[in-house]
Amino acid sequence: MLRTNTCGQLRLEHDKQEVTLSGWVHRRRDHGGLIFIDLRDRWGLTQVVFDPTINARVHELAGSLRSEFVIQVTGRVRCRPLEQDNPNLPTGQVEVEAHSLKILNAAKTPPFDINKETVVDEALRLRYRYLDLRRERMQRNMMLRYKVVRYIRNFLNEKDFIEIETPILFKTTPEGARDYLVPSRVHAGKFYALPQSPQQLKQLLMVAGYDRYFQIARCFRDEDQRGDRQPEFTQLDMEMSFIDREDIMALVERLIIGLAETVAPDRQILQKPFLRLTYQEAMARFGRDNPDIRFGLELSDISPLVAQCGFKVFNDVITAGGLVKGFNATGLGNYSRKQIDELTDFIKDFGAKGLAWLKVEADNTVPTGVKVGGSSFAKFLSAEEVAVIISQLNGQAGDLLLFVADQPSITNESLGRLRLEIGQRLGLRNDELLAFCWVIDFPFVLWNEDEKRWDPSHHLFTSPMDEDIALLDSNPAQARGKQYDLVLNGYENGGGSIRIHQRELQEKVFGLIGLDVEEAKHRFGHMLEAFEYGTPPHGGIALGIDRLVMLLAREPNIREVIAFPKSQSATDLMAGAPTDVSETQLKELHIRLR
Amino acid sequence: MLRTNTCGQLRLEHDKQEVTLSGWVHRRRDHGGLIFIDLRDRWGLTQVVFDPTINARVHELAGSLRSEFVIQVTGRVRCRPLEQDNPNLPTGQVEVEAHSLKILNAAKTPPFDINKETVVDEALRLRYRYLDLRRERMQRNMMLRYKVVRYIRNFLNEKDFIEIETPILFKTTPEGARDYLVPSRVHAGKFYALPQSPQQLKQLLMVAGYDRYFQIARCFRDEDQRGDRQPEFTQLDMEMSFIDREDIMALVERLIIGLAETVAPDRQILQKPFLRLTYQEAMARFGRDNPDIRFGLELSDISPLVAQCGFKVFNDVITAGGLVKGFNATGLGNYSRKQIDELTDFIKDFGAKGLAWLKVEADNTVPTGVKVGGSSFAKFLSAEEVAVIISQLNGQAGDLLLFVADQPSITNESLGRLRLEIGQRLGLRNDELLAFCWVIDFPFVLWNEDEKRWDPSHHLFTSPMDEDIALLDSNPAQARGKQYDLVLNGYENGGGSIRIHQRELQEKVFGLIGLDVEEAKHRFGHMLEAFEYGTPPHGGIALGIDRLVMLLAREPNIREVIAFPKSQSATDLMAGAPTDVSETQLKELHIRLR
Repeated sequence: MLRTNTCGQLRLEHDKQEVTLSGWVHRRRDHGGLIFIDLRDRWGLTQVVFDPTINARVHELAGSLRSEFVIQVTGRVRCRPLEQDNPNLPTGQVEVEAHSLKILNAAKTPPFDINKETVVDEALRLRYRYLDLRRERMQRNMMLRYKVVRYIRNFLNEKDFIEIETPILFKTTPEGARDYLVPSRVHAGKFYALPQSPQQLKQLLMVAGYDRYFQIARCFRDEDQRGDRQPEFTQLDMEMSFIDREDIMALVERLIIGLAETVAPDRQILQKPFLRLTYQEAMARFGRDNPDIRFGLELSDISPLVAQCGFKVFNDVITAGGLVKGFNATGLGNYSRKQIDELTDFIKDFGAKGLAWLKVEADNTVPTGVKVGGSSFAKFLSAEEVAVIISQLNGQAGDLLLFVADQPSITNESLGRLRLEIGQRLGLRNDELLAFCWVIDFPFVLWNEDEKRWDPSHHLFTSPMDEDIALLDSNPAQARGKQYDLVLNGYENGGGSIRIHQRELQEKVFGLIGLDVEEAKHRFGHMLEAFEYGTPPHGGIALGIDRLVMLLAREPNIREVIAFPKSQSATDLMAGAPTDVSETQLKELHIRLR
Repeated sequence: MLRTNTCGQLRLEHDKQEVTLSGWVHRRRDHGGLIFIDLRDRWGLTQVVFDPTINARVHELAGSLRSEFVIQVTGRVRCRPLEQDNPNLPTGQVEVEAHSLKILNAAKTPPFDINKETVVDEALRLRYRYLDLRRERMQRNMMLRYKVVRYIRNFLNEKDFIEIETPILFKTTPEGARDYLVPSRVHAGKFYALPQSPQQLKQLLMVAGYDRYFQIARCFRDEDQRGDRQPEFTQLDMEMSFIDREDIMALVERLIIGLAETVAPDRQILQKPFLRLTYQEAMARFGRDNPDIRFGLELSDISPLVAQCGFKVFNDVITAGGLVKGFNATGLGNYSRKQIDELTDFIKDFGAKGLAWLKVEADNTVPTGVKVGGSSFAKFLSAEEVAVIISQLNGQAGDLLLFVADQPSITNESLGRLRLEIGQRLGLRNDELLAFCWVIDFPFVLWNEDEKRWDPSHHLFTSPMDEDIALLDSNPAQARGKQYDLVLNGYENGGGSIRIHQRELQEKVFGLIGLDVEEAKHRFGHMLEAFEYGTPPHGGIALGIDRLVMLLAREPNIREVIAFPKSQSATDLMAGAPTDVSETQLKELHIRLR
């Protein structure tokens, strides 16, 4: 061992001990003939002093040290003079008086600072990820991630779960997202797929009687990257038998609360037990099924108020089955026309054709105490109609009311996004809060207009509600699934469901979504067959580890909590992957380039 | 929750309690008007009694139960009559008197018995893996595997290691085994590779200062399958900074001893601390670098004795730089000529041209007390020469001495294998023993005759011994590497090394193995560059989890300890992977089939 202690370990009690430390030169200061080195390792910093009167040769060698040199120092621990201690450092009351020094490895000047938090171009950070990972922020993130996963494992261990590894080389199932494929050398022309999740395998483990399974599972999706997507990601994958929805929600809630309180004790959980919203309620109040409940600004449906009003835009939308909704951008009544135009541009990105708005001003001459201070549509309405709208949105003097009239999905999506944007501008998305909620009672299927068929709202294996099974034939749109999503601060953090465990129902669902019998057998024959050999009722959930750690670490994207992430174009900028491969390799795999 | 208790939980203390159990019908017996069901779940078996005098309707329904039906039973716990208890079952003193029964799912007759250990064709087992995994043996194996990994994690947690996930989509490095490749959709014509190990990434984590890293890592090799190979496998991957060989060997040894004593307390560890053999010693005594030290039958080099003897075969081999070695197949002097011919055929599979043999018989008329009782070569030697050979191999009356004369690698390999075979026949490979040993001081490089260059004996990043660095120029064959292998019962169970941490030495090694500067930069530029930014001395090891669990479970191959293994032709027989993929998928990936 090239050290007796770590750089985070020495205290007053070590006074006068002979120690050997190894680590990186974090900072060097030359002061009054002495050289001070802050020596760094994973555990902390220790001040090392090189004194020419103690050892001139060692002092001279110390003069050659530069940032990030790797050194081994032997010396004596001593108390720092009282006025020189550093209360911000756990080792700040002592220093090591060096009497020998060995340079284990030199270092070129790093392309960015390791010893202070500076803004560095992300491409450069990823190119030199091994240096970026030395920085305190990344060390903290990696340690947090490790603690999160360790907490989860220990919790589930105690709850009698068994962790089972499932294969990475598996079978392509071309619904859902795009698969990563792996050409087979042994079977010419055939391909494995990397799993998008261990969904089928964990259900088969329930068939096999493992009863309580989990896995910290690597999953893969070949999708175009966004800020919070990666080609590979990690999920806590769980499945349980002989349970219902309440059981698994209760267990996960206990897990998550314990986890957050342990690894992020400085954060406040908004509400315990977690708020539960039905899908309908989430859409009505927040326009989204992953609502950020840290703040209000809730949406309000004014369709009934304006169905018969004098504003044709509203009337037409409602006649066509649309929705007119709005919310109160509290206190933004001073927004200029230009600022409102920006908001209009913002919602157009989400398909809305326009933004209707109304400023509220004080008016003590009327019973309500307020009047319209300017509006894009109020002139088409009667004073009574306007007053009811202001009242429904609880408009006070100085408020800005914002409205969208469109097809329900567009109204909800654009207003839901606008609500988040306004919440951000108003500083209402408090980073100290952890606002978990459950969303339940999702629709079982959604209509896919492009392909003129029903898509599963969750996935193929989710069970419909028992009382809604009859609706699968008569009115699929009204059927609800046994699905539950866990939402944190406006991000979907996990999704699960009670699964189908009977072949007939599974075949019925395959039929509903337009998978014909032969195709279903080809893709999922093993699942259908398994259901006939004694499959227990079961259900589970998958929680995104990257996302969860990102939110606990207050980071803006998941790349900050992954040791070696890909760039937005799915490239490893450090090692340079993907790469060309040789013709020999392609031949062996029975493929050629197009 | 569809139960109040598991099937392994009920005891006398639960007498008269109302309980609900859910599980599988393990066995059904009809007896004297009563129906007895052994109800099974992951935790055990509980006897359930259906009595027509208690509830005729429930008793009738119970009559329809078949093996592997999934049921829910509610009833009252009661003590079994004294003479009817089952001391082999933890729940054997009680039974549940059912008063309600719900069939949660029916089951067809399984293709093989779940409730008893029978020999089943492996292809059938893999086809219905979800049923195979229900069997007690597989449940035991999965649980053992889980406990092994859990023990390892807890041990390393306490030793301040941090677990860090490294990417599965990485860069091809076409030395070593064949890579699995993943075509990139975003970057036409380029490919990711699945990692053969996280070797480079864990070294970069040392560069990044994580100091003590581990990961239970999935690794991939596209090799032709053998009994103990799989396309994907799991290893405990570890790396430490500021350590030397002794540190990591000591730590791993503590880990392994603690693990074995915890998860397999009924097994005996042959020797603590583990025996250490140099590579030279292992080859001399056992003919292999992964010796099975559970038994003797050690090899003996008789080259010096026969270099000048009258047997031309021996003379010629020695003149050509070969070796004549033998061992004492104790007590097999009664082997027939046919049996010896079988042994000759056996060693020919390993390249040997022939087997020389000598039977030892008692002869009290000579001072040694023994004489030749038959031999393939003794007639060419003098009586003294034969006597010395018999003496060196400690031949006693009734022994059979076996010899191979060939090039050193063939002599060692064929005799080493023959020793294992004879050990097996003599029942010396005691399954109750766990015989760990370390093999150290491996040659740094091995000559690749086909490509006329040196191959790394371990891998590209292993450091040569400090005192042997000069030999890299003058006599590479004599240089030793800082490599260490952990061997268990004749299997290599892990391999590690102290790594190179300086660019110049790494480049020298690349040069030695014939990687030119440009090629080295193309493949490993990020490693070479990292070495210049303050890389600490570091080293690590990888231990094969599948192999370790296999040996702890006394299983003959690793498929028995993997939940969903591939067949020998790398096929998933249950789901049917690999499969054809669509032309659309191929197009998106910029490839076509040959």
